[in-house]
Amino acid sequence: MAAGKQVLLPRWLIPVQPEGAVLEDHAVVLDGGRIEAVLPADQLQTTPDCEPVPLPDHALIPGLVNSHTHNAMTLMRGMADDLPLMRWLEDHIWPAEQRWVGPRFVRVGSELAMLEMLRGGTTCFNDNYFFPDVTAEAAERAGMRAVIGIPIISVPTAWASTEDEYFRRGLDVHQRLVESPLVSSAFAPHAPYTVSNEAFGRIRSLAEEMDIPVHLHLLETAGEIQASIDQYGLAPLDRLESLGLLNDRLLAVHMTQLDDHAIARLARAGVHVLHCPASNLKLASGICRVADLDRAGVNVAIGTDGAASNNTLDMFAEMRLAALLAKGASGDPEAVPAARALSMATLHGARALGLDARIGSIEPGKSADLAAVRLGEVETAPVHHVVSQLVYAASRRQVSDVWIEGRRVLENGETTTLDADRILQESEQWRRRLSRTDQVSAGEAG
Amino acid sequence: MAAGKQVLLPRWLIPVQPEGAVLEDHAVVLDGGRIEAVLPADQLQTTPDCEPVPLPDHALIPGLVNSHTHNAMTLMRGMADDLPLMRWLEDHIWPAEQRWVGPRFVRVGSELAMLEMLRGGTTCFNDNYFFPDVTAEAAERAGMRAVIGIPIISVPTAWASTEDEYFRRGLDVHQRLVESPLVSSAFAPHAPYTVSNEAFGRIRSLAEEMDIPVHLHLLETAGEIQASIDQYGLAPLDRLESLGLLNDRLLAVHMTQLDDHAIARLARAGVHVLHCPASNLKLASGICRVADLDRAGVNVAIGTDGAASNNTLDMFAEMRLAALLAKGASGDPEAVPAARALSMATLHGARALGLDARIGSIEPGKSADLAAVRLGEVETAPVHHVVSQLVYAASRRQVSDVWIEGRRVLENGETTTLDADRILQESEQWRRRLSRTDQVSAGEAG
Repeated sequence: MAAGKQVLLPRWLIPVQPEGAVLEDHAVVLDGGRIEAVLPADQLQTTPDCEPVPLPDHALIPGLVNSHTHNAMTLMRGMADDLPLMRWLEDHIWPAEQRWVGPRFVRVGSELAMLEMLRGGTTCFNDNYFFPDVTAEAAERAGMRAVIGIPIISVPTAWASTEDEYFRRGLDVHQRLVESPLVSSAFAPHAPYTVSNEAFGRIRSLAEEMDIPVHLHLLETAGEIQASIDQYGLAPLDRLESLGLLNDRLLAVHMTQLDDHAIARLARAGVHVLHCPASNLKLASGICRVADLDRAGVNVAIGTDGAASNNTLDMFAEMRLAALLAKGASGDPEAVPAARALSMATLHGARALGLDARIGSIEPGKSADLAAVRLGEVETAPVHHVVSQLVYAASRRQVSDVWIEGRRVLENGETTTLDADRILQESEQWRRRLSRTDQVSAGEAG
Repeated sequence: MAAGKQVLLPRWLIPVQPEGAVLEDHAVVLDGGRIEAVLPADQLQTTPDCEPVPLPDHALIPGLVNSHTHNAMTLMRGMADDLPLMRWLEDHIWPAEQRWVGPRFVRVGSELAMLEMLRGGTTCFNDNYFFPDVTAEAAERAGMRAVIGIPIISVPTAWASTEDEYFRRGLDVHQRLVESPLVSSAFAPHAPYTVSNEAFGRIRSLAEEMDIPVHLHLLETAGEIQASIDQYGLAPLDRLESLGLLNDRLLAVHMTQLDDHAIARLARAGVHVLHCPASNLKLASGICRVADLDRAGVNVAIGTDGAASNNTLDMFAEMRLAALLAKGASGDPEAVPAARALSMATLHGARALGLDARIGSIEPGKSADLAAVRLGEVETAPVHHVVSQLVYAASRRQVSDVWIEGRRVLENGETTTLDADRILQESEQWRRRLSRTDQVSAGEAG
């Protein structure tokens, strides 16, 4: 599937590494899915069998890494909003999931999510949902890079009935993905309050052995801390440390409840924080102290969370919000400048996923996971500073082309590996099914 | 310029009044620039000389009202970011303004701003900048509804040298606009710290006499309160009250420094709050207590502020951010639900500007200021709840058509009254000029 030689000629090239750099009049040479060279355009030797791709008013950036998703839930986008977390879950999301979640639901939901992400310049996602085998297959078919969570939760679902079954089925999925060029796996224990000490212990030793990350919702709300002390006699970070999980394998999602001590501890342990600002605000969970984490040297990546709570998978919006909120919440207008926000949405995500040797920046030897963004449009004119326009003004609808391992999966705004019409039709059928359940369960609850 | 009879057939119609209502299979009949009727599509009597406009996967909404802009500053979009307010102003914005602001700058900047706003569904703006005569003329030419601020500031600029000259030139502008069908005026004293008691007194009596609003940056930062006590012996709200300005004519922009007492006082006085969440976050000014203001019955409208600090004039992004931030900052996930956010971006803006009898909702007798938003796209699929998709998931790039007083000023994404190519070219010329100054002044400052 990897393409042969290709040459891209963007107006601006933003390698991300080094942070803040902008190259003009440079060419990117791709070969066999890798970046072979980045060089001044006038040093380019024309090769007769390779017509360069002109990107005359575009910025070329590394593909965005959406570090926390629940892709199948895209089918529940906007099904229930403006509710407290528990009413949202208990009256809407869980009843719908109980009734409908299965391979067909997960396939269509994942496809809709990938369609949305590819159109918006996202080339890699880190997912956490049931039927990970289906999501993995869908990603492979779409040519999209992904880390697929192996869900572990002490609640029976259509995917597995017991913790044991979650492990067994999850390990099968992992096994199948070992040879996959684009898709790998991570453990995805749901949250401290839904996973037993025993399961966490198993995750620790298996994750080490398999050398994969542990992707966990953590410190999402204030209530979580007291609940953990009540049940385990330990706050969540203490409990995870006692279980040997507080280390650089841990991808901690949300983290809205942090004091200075906790921040220093995360920095020492090398824990990665996956920051989901829109979801945190919308559910009023709290605000992650990103400016302080960043200053302490913690690797902060950005994720959209699922579309049922966000309600988009828009990494441009999320990157901008992360940059704005870090300033507003810290009172420091210099916190998370534009170039740092772009790093968080690319290289930091790659680093969290253990993929930074392969993706996250535009450098020779890395995989050609790239997005071209038209900056010549009204909404980003005039272009005083390219990175600023990308982060603070551009929208994902300015993404024209996307490559993953050299394959052009979005061409002039159209996906080449996903059939948008068919996916929209199937999504609409799922909407009808879901809305019947949702009216019933919300009615019962009310 | 007002069009004759037109019939629009949207898939969904969101009148805004009543809040949260969604009508399906309804037609909107326009006549002479007004909304003549809203009725079930099957009751429509076909008129031979009027071909209905099909909007088969669109939501039709009232045109968005951007309640606080500095349109000409769009030419400085992204010129300087990630800086504290005073360094941003003193090292970048003010030197550039001193060197370049004049009628030509204001014309091009205003045109670029309107181009951006029309493409994003905004039909009305409330501007505050120098050379308001130029902005007013540009709005009239573009067929855009506007309230143009009469700037009053105790600092000499290219527009006026003394407070007296600001009043004299401003009153001329007001006089010229009295007969304008789309454009009216407001007083726009810059801020408490840049306007004298004498000038505020004159504004109070003139605004009453002329029956126009008073549009003022107020309580933007914490520092403003102490500075006012030091200079006038009164906090800003006390000072404004003593000057007779704390009333329902006052449009108070930003308002990030409010205690419970101040909120109750604003509610009693009928002051309107123009909320600019992106700008407040980006400059780390503070966070406006929108959830509490809304609960107290204060009319909260939404504005983008200028593109030099936002960096967009995107009312969809601003509406979404207002809804998210109100929840996150108050800790209440039910604060500012989607339908209320849409009201803030339409009818509340109209009310603040004294235009709610004419615009802000889709009701017979009101002006046909409308925007059609394609909801059939990937990014808003599937459509469980129309208003939720509009506020939480849709982007301005889904706006296809815009009408102002019945005139179709955006048609399939293309402006009909503004020449995008010419405006982009002129904007690029201004970027070159500005960047020369900016490098010099930032260099001197550094």
